[in-house]
Amino acid sequence: MDELLYGVAYYDEYMPCERLDEDIRMMKEAGINLVRIAESTWSTHEPQNGVFDFSSVDRVLDAMHEAGIRVIVGTPTYAVPTWMVKEHPDVLAETPDGPGRYGARQIMDIANPTYLFYAERIIRKLISRVCDHPAVIGYQVDNETKHYRTSGPNVQLRFVKYVREKFGTVERLNEAFGLAYWSNRINSWEDFPSVVGTINGSLGAEFAKFQRRLVTEFLAWQTSIVNEYKRPGQFVTHNFDFEWRGYSFGVQPDVDHFEAAKALDIAGVDIYHPSQDELTGKEISFGGDSTRSLKGTNYFVLETQAQAFPNWTPYPGQLRLQAFSHLASGADMVEYWHWHSIHNSFETYWKGLLSHDLGPNPTYDEAKTIGRDFARLSPKLVHLKKRNRAAILVSNEALTALDWFPLPGGNVRYNDVVRLMYDRLYEMNVGVDVLHPGSDSFESYDLIAVPALYAASDELLARLNRFVENGGHVVYTFKSGFADENVQVRAGAQPGLIGEACGVRYNQFVEPKSVTLKGDPFGVGEEQSGVSVWMELLTPATADVLAWYDHPHWGAYAAITENRYGKGTATYVGCLPNAAVMGKVLERAVKAAGLWGADQELSFPLIVKSGTNEAGKTIRYYFNYSDEPRAFAYPHGDGTELLSDRAVRSGERIELDRWGVAIVEA
Amino acid sequence: MDELLYGVAYYDEYMPCERLDEDIRMMKEAGINLVRIAESTWSTHEPQNGVFDFSSVDRVLDAMHEAGIRVIVGTPTYAVPTWMVKEHPDVLAETPDGPGRYGARQIMDIANPTYLFYAERIIRKLISRVCDHPAVIGYQVDNETKHYRTSGPNVQLRFVKYVREKFGTVERLNEAFGLAYWSNRINSWEDFPSVVGTINGSLGAEFAKFQRRLVTEFLAWQTSIVNEYKRPGQFVTHNFDFEWRGYSFGVQPDVDHFEAAKALDIAGVDIYHPSQDELTGKEISFGGDSTRSLKGTNYFVLETQAQAFPNWTPYPGQLRLQAFSHLASGADMVEYWHWHSIHNSFETYWKGLLSHDLGPNPTYDEAKTIGRDFARLSPKLVHLKKRNRAAILVSNEALTALDWFPLPGGNVRYNDVVRLMYDRLYEMNVGVDVLHPGSDSFESYDLIAVPALYAASDELLARLNRFVENGGHVVYTFKSGFADENVQVRAGAQPGLIGEACGVRYNQFVEPKSVTLKGDPFGVGEEQSGVSVWMELLTPATADVLAWYDHPHWGAYAAITENRYGKGTATYVGCLPNAAVMGKVLERAVKAAGLWGADQELSFPLIVKSGTNEAGKTIRYYFNYSDEPRAFAYPHGDGTELLSDRAVRSGERIELDRWGVAIVEA
Amino acid sequence: MDELLYGVAYYDEYMPCERLDEDIRMMKEAGINLVRIAESTWSTHEPQNGVFDFSSVDRVLDAMHEAGIRVIVGTPTYAVPTWMVKEHPDVLAETPDGPGRYGARQIMDIANPTYLFYAERIIRKLISRVCDHPAVIGYQVDNETKHYRTSGPNVQLRFVKYVREKFGTVERLNEAFGLAYWSNRINSWEDFPSVVGTINGSLGAEFAKFQRRLVTEFLAWQTSIVNEYKRPGQFVTHNFDFEWRGYSFGVQPDVDHFEAAKALDIAGVDIYHPSQDELTGKEISFGGDSTRSLKGTNYFVLETQAQAFPNWTPYPGQLRLQAFSHLASGADMVEYWHWHSIHNSFETYWKGLLSHDLGPNPTYDEAKTIGRDFARLSPKLVHLKKRNRAAILVSNEALTALDWFPLPGGNVRYNDVVRLMYDRLYEMNVGVDVLHPGSDSFESYDLIAVPALYAASDELLARLNRFVENGGHVVYTFKSGFADENVQVRAGAQPGLIGEACGVRYNQFVEPKSVTLKGDPFGVGEEQSGVSVWMELLTPATADVLAWYDHPHWGAYAAITENRYGKGTATYVGCLPNAAVMGKVLERAVKAAGLWGADQELSFPLIVKSGTNEAGKTIRYYFNYSDEPRAFAYPHGDGTELLSDRAVRSGERIELDRWGVAIVEA
Repeated sequence: MDELLYGVAYYDEYMPCERLDEDIRMMKEAGINLVRIAESTWSTHEPQNGVFDFSSVDRVLDAMHEAGIRVIVGTPTYAVPTWMVKEHPDVLAETPDGPGRYGARQIMDIANPTYLFYAERIIRKLISRVCDHPAVIGYQVDNETKHYRTSGPNVQLRFVKYVREKFGTVERLNEAFGLAYWSNRINSWEDFPSVVGTINGSLGAEFAKFQRRLVTEFLAWQTSIVNEYKRPGQFVTHNFDFEWRGYSFGVQPDVDHFEAAKALDIAGVDIYHPSQDELTGKEISFGGDSTRSLKGTNYFVLETQAQAFPNWTPYPGQLRLQAFSHLASGADMVEYWHWHSIHNSFETYWKGLLSHDLGPNPTYDEAKTIGRDFARLSPKLVHLKKRNRAAILVSNEALTALDWFPLPGGNVRYNDVVRLMYDRLYEMNVGVDVLHPGSDSFESYDLIAVPALYAASDELLARLNRFVENGGHVVYTFKSGFADENVQVRAGAQPGLIGEACGVRYNQFVEPKSVTLKGDPFGVGEEQSGVSVWMELLTPATADVLAWYDHPHWGAYAAITENRYGKGTATYVGCLPNAAVMGKVLERAVKAAGLWGADQELSFPLIVKSGTNEAGKTIRYYFNYSDEPRAFAYPHGDGTELLSDRAVRSGERIELDRWGVAIVEA
Repeated sequence: MDELLYGVAYYDEYMPCERLDEDIRMMKEAGINLVRIAESTWSTHEPQNGVFDFSSVDRVLDAMHEAGIRVIVGTPTYAVPTWMVKEHPDVLAETPDGPGRYGARQIMDIANPTYLFYAERIIRKLISRVCDHPAVIGYQVDNETKHYRTSGPNVQLRFVKYVREKFGTVERLNEAFGLAYWSNRINSWEDFPSVVGTINGSLGAEFAKFQRRLVTEFLAWQTSIVNEYKRPGQFVTHNFDFEWRGYSFGVQPDVDHFEAAKALDIAGVDIYHPSQDELTGKEISFGGDSTRSLKGTNYFVLETQAQAFPNWTPYPGQLRLQAFSHLASGADMVEYWHWHSIHNSFETYWKGLLSHDLGPNPTYDEAKTIGRDFARLSPKLVHLKKRNRAAILVSNEALTALDWFPLPGGNVRYNDVVRLMYDRLYEMNVGVDVLHPGSDSFESYDLIAVPALYAASDELLARLNRFVENGGHVVYTFKSGFADENVQVRAGAQPGLIGEACGVRYNQFVEPKSVTLKGDPFGVGEEQSGVSVWMELLTPATADVLAWYDHPHWGAYAAITENRYGKGTATYVGCLPNAAVMGKVLERAVKAAGLWGADQELSFPLIVKSGTNEAGKTIRYYFNYSDEPRAFAYPHGDGTELLSDRAVRSGERIELDRWGVAIVEA
Repeated sequence: MDELLYGVAYYDEYMPCERLDEDIRMMKEAGINLVRIAESTWSTHEPQNGVFDFSSVDRVLDAMHEAGIRVIVGTPTYAVPTWMVKEHPDVLAETPDGPGRYGARQIMDIANPTYLFYAERIIRKLISRVCDHPAVIGYQVDNETKHYRTSGPNVQLRFVKYVREKFGTVERLNEAFGLAYWSNRINSWEDFPSVVGTINGSLGAEFAKFQRRLVTEFLAWQTSIVNEYKRPGQFVTHNFDFEWRGYSFGVQPDVDHFEAAKALDIAGVDIYHPSQDELTGKEISFGGDSTRSLKGTNYFVLETQAQAFPNWTPYPGQLRLQAFSHLASGADMVEYWHWHSIHNSFETYWKGLLSHDLGPNPTYDEAKTIGRDFARLSPKLVHLKKRNRAAILVSNEALTALDWFPLPGGNVRYNDVVRLMYDRLYEMNVGVDVLHPGSDSFESYDLIAVPALYAASDELLARLNRFVENGGHVVYTFKSGFADENVQVRAGAQPGLIGEACGVRYNQFVEPKSVTLKGDPFGVGEEQSGVSVWMELLTPATADVLAWYDHPHWGAYAAITENRYGKGTATYVGCLPNAAVMGKVLERAVKAAGLWGADQELSFPLIVKSGTNEAGKTIRYYFNYSDEPRAFAYPHGDGTELLSDRAVRSGERIELDRWGVAIVEA
């Protein structure tokens, strides 16, 4: 698209009264130029098997077109109608908890052919009807697709074939997964048990990978159908989402975003995050970096919060701050879920831009200022190009493997380690791309952060070694390299191949109790020097020791090391340190990689994000993520602050309101 | 009945040895003049299908009659025999957890015709046998009846018909419940899914209402059978119970007590409550006010605790205090569950008046003094008439709706708000009746407290507005008026129609963090001024603001308001305040309603309850709910302290022992 | 066996590469002279139904024999192969949670004849093949056998027959279990319901006893098969385990160890325990005393930890301390689970003597010193004979009954009371045997500690009275004697028959809140004088009161009493006291019983254990269970410290390193 899109999810079908004209009037007033429709309302559009009623789609398309508002049409396949379940109860996914129960969305078996038959039919009916409508700019296939833990007999059967395809013989399978243990050997393919009850982490992790592949296949299948109808200029996107911990926290366990995004034209995402005093911009940044990295270019925020929950109702200024933060990560669209708060059912307290009274309110009033600024600044802000020299490597496989072999206590999981690293880079204003094990672009970066890469092939570890050898900088945490791609622990010295680049070895690990880093080596203060959850008893081979453990018995071992290897350096963090220590370790690596600049002299809550606009100029966003006004000396070349349309000189002091934004083009 | 009844539940069938004569001897010594029998022992009375053995009933009736002890016979239908379940496993209720398992009581499907067939037969056999026995004064139908979450196919089918009867068309149903959401529309009655998995709060709440109707019908059906045998002078009662939080806490979610009580002659109830240092009398008062209000007259306490749990074993004096507290709320009966502690099975540690040794013990010894006083004072204390000018409005519908749309954190539920208001009125010695949405007597009161009336029809809200307009005083809490009777949030300004009487509007609400009421407006101290869990951002229209929020961003909004409307006032509490603040708000309303008198100058732990006896004299009970002796100046006209049979002059100082009681007739 | 066995569980089948020669080389270096094999790997040995492959057994036996390492062969029956479950899904135990799922070990129905058929076949095939191999010294039948909650229809049916056999008539059953309660009477055997849903504690406890009998029968059946092949000199053992609370905590609820051990030649056990700063030796001692008592002689520690969990990785010295502690309790074998850490599946982080890298590590290096010392000192340390004069009486029946009728709060269960007593005796270096209700050797002891003997027959209580009468000393805790063998609470005064010996009575009990023992009667300090969880309101008849409660209302009652009865004394602890108070009460009894000697002048963390070796000399182990060096004056006759091979004179000061050991032969 050629302009910034400011949108809302719109549900004419949910309205308690006739509102279309009034809604469009209020949307226009708020600068809304996009709506997404239809993705949740199959039972309205196909009220009975084979009976179709797209009247609400038609009238919304016509009215939006007349108002100049663009429309994304979603395929309504993630929530199945009552008639389908009544006719074919087995469209519901059988999960480890048993057969499904009708009620919620996202409860069907995405591998069930009955479901697929009906899904294909409604997709063809809907898309063929709307594809020529001038309001339609693109399509969203399904919504927040996952595998919903589907694991019934049909899925088990396909999994057996998938495993046979992969391993060829039961002997190789038994060996790779260690199935001799507790008499789990599968000595004939017919004996393959349902893996629902398995206690073998390798088998369980492989099944999770297979389930993620079902998602990839499902989305590719939907996209291929929609592509048959897609007009030139239209796009297909999908609304990915993240590991949910009450908000968008980290890598999605149930979908391989990189694989699944391949079929799409544009990557889309929903990003939800804490607000009020807990608003930090971290999720906006992480979600944006992750989604931008899927296809290496701009992306859509297909859903984000307007008022949402009572504890997220934004303070004055926060809605603006959030909107521009999305743009600063490379989003070309900010779309709220949703326009109007819903009066019944499950998400009644997940509020939209309008409250239940459907009139103006302070959040809506603030949206009006955003709509105005988006429209005015669109030519300068759309299609922001970013070129980051740092990256973080994330892995679905490592995540699943660590869920099978959790850290003690169960509170620190894979994504906590990811965020421990990511958030520190964010706080020091280091722009980051997100890599995955299949990425072939390691060499484009100077620094790669590698959190808890627990399950990884020798090939991947060798590539990382090569990256260092060639002059790259890597910071690893504990657990990296421990197991191979089959979640088989390596039988040699730990941490596997990367031990070479890191210059370190260990064969014992313990749970720290009252352990600190000896002598506060990073100067963060004794109270920040604690080690928790996990510690490996490192013996440096060639590495320099950055920190030793302080403990009566484990004091002989290193905690954090750094090793020159080829032209680069590899840092190894053998324990879970405090955030402050992790920040210092990464700061050291950022400096070694030559990435420390003027933006790094500022730090959270003062956040800087930058990129290049279509005119080739540098756009720098300055965000104040705090409840106090803040100021800073603008360190770059003379430019223009776009929101105020005011010249800014190098070195000039820029003042930011609490939760304030400035955008400098230079 | 013509006298105070002091009773015990008696289970000859549970005795480990022949004890009837000795039990009766000990009962007489304790002044016990009533026993309830037979309600739990179907398998004894019908040991095999169609084989009856009422010998234990016969011998107990005869022996009791001879001893002058009256008997209530319970229908034994709430615990089914093994033979029935073995023959017909489907008599067990299918619940959301699956098919039932034999073992406990209250596990059958009260809508199952097989169960109903056997239930009717045992009722007719038992009641026809005992109805002419001179010991029998009345009947208890079933016991603590609820719907036991029955929700199998037969119940689902009846629910569909019930919904169709109510809404007529699927279109009206879909609209009222907002079923378009997440593709939940039901476009043909045949498609109606089991609601067990529903995520639609309107549908779920309607099913809960339907389940409560099953209870009403079941009890009316049992009563109609017993009525065929009932002699003149005999009564039918039922033992209702409350929301159980380890004790009788609040409104029963699963039964509409008001509807279910219509078929009965006398309302009965069980009331269990904390004891020892936690004894406050609040549950006795709340349970009593609730039950008295069912039929607007005296009621039976069919079960209450003797020793019960280890942590409830009463301190010396407490059993007496409790017994007279029941009378003070209008009870004509105090009956212990149960006579003797049981030696096996599930409630072994729920002890009776006798311990397992079946001999005297300190609790039993104290009961003897109660029995003596009851017998002596019965003519003065029986049939106490109460005429309260304050009321509290409770609603099963609001309770269920708030369970579907819970307050943040999940710790504060409907009954917590009910008790937050009720307990404050109790502490200031304001007598209270309990109203329900169907009550037609609002105008008999000067003050109505309305906790969290979340789901309510326009008609009900209009009636409340009218009550204020005509000079009444209402105190509402947050969430009142928010949704209609179908749990559909109102699409207009909040709090719906009552916003008019309250002179206030809001369309945003947040979760308070570090929020207080600005400037301690009620003088309760800063540390008591906190706001928790919920706050609505109120904008006063015509209302006076009693309290503003103290918060950097929400300080512009009102927290508690008061509005003159017609001849009355409406107070709106838009947040969850501390108990002290709620007390002050209610005190202000009590004074405005002209209900502040001499009794309000005393306060908890000094509790005053009053009423009029059959001689037309005023009876005033004074209770010391504390472990310290207390005294007060008796403020009313000259009278007689009945326990000591001593004259009391107006203004005279009355001393109460710790956990002590005085009763003044004047 | 004629020498100390130092062993490891060895799984050639789990190895990721060919390692047998290297493993044996490293074993020999560590002094390992025993391996246990084959107990977990049925699917390797019978890869398809009726197809057998014992090649890994053969080659290990041959190689071990060549190396002079002895082998125990386990029957591989506790983990079933995939083919069996695929052919016969009903071999999986149906439990209260439903049908079984394949995956883990210990999931089959040990009463299922299909399972038993295949189990018998593999046992015969395996044992017949190995029995003549010179490396084989004995057999382990199954592993950590329990009943796995099996409770499907076949088990229910057998239970009915078992109950009928026991009670003869339904009338006697109904009476003994109090089934009249809540209409649970069984009036015809055909009506017997599945007890899975029962709420009757007597019935539930009887079923648990029946399930324990299934275990006894199963182990006896396996043993009888193995016995057919056993050569002279070979033995059959089993690896019992304890109640698991993250480690071996107390009496095993699901197995009657005393009954089950009868069929075996030698008792075996696994003992796992906290380590690092939490290492106390208590579990080693408790587990050892328990297992030694099963057959009244030496036993095998068939599994104990090497590195195990990250939080158990031993500090330097601890592995040695643990090994000698096992010997000091009478073990003739210390065997680690397991040799090498496993690279896949469920117990990857339960590490063996070798880490995953299969090379040396600090723990392995310490094992080498143990192996050397075991070999050198075997003639002096093997077959240590112990003769204790104190005992503790434990009861499966009391444990189960207290699970049905738990103490308030649910945190203090039967084994907590067992350990509260046991650990105090351990800390004061009093050697203890473990008795059970069926023991006929009460009279061999001077002191019996009786924790919470909640369910016990009159016969047992009378035997305990007789023991006191004849001069014995008993210390009872609260709850003892309360219910009979059918978990029917006694209808007479409490604590039943033992009230006579204890000279005390009660009929009320409460939950203590802010209750202490009045005046700190044991001089442990006020802060240690608290009473928690449970208190009985004791009235002394003939007893002396050792402690009164301090409470405004319960102060009239005794808490702890002591009574002279015949020639002995009975102490009754009517409440849950602090550990310090329990220690003082037991110290008083130990002194009264004449068991206080020089060893009692030392105390934890200085632990003394002693016995007689084959040469008739006294062996005394001194252990320092602390992280500080300690010293003491050696109080016994002149002897030799065996580890240093140094003479020790009476009165000489012996120094122990932190976590140090000394062994004096005198």
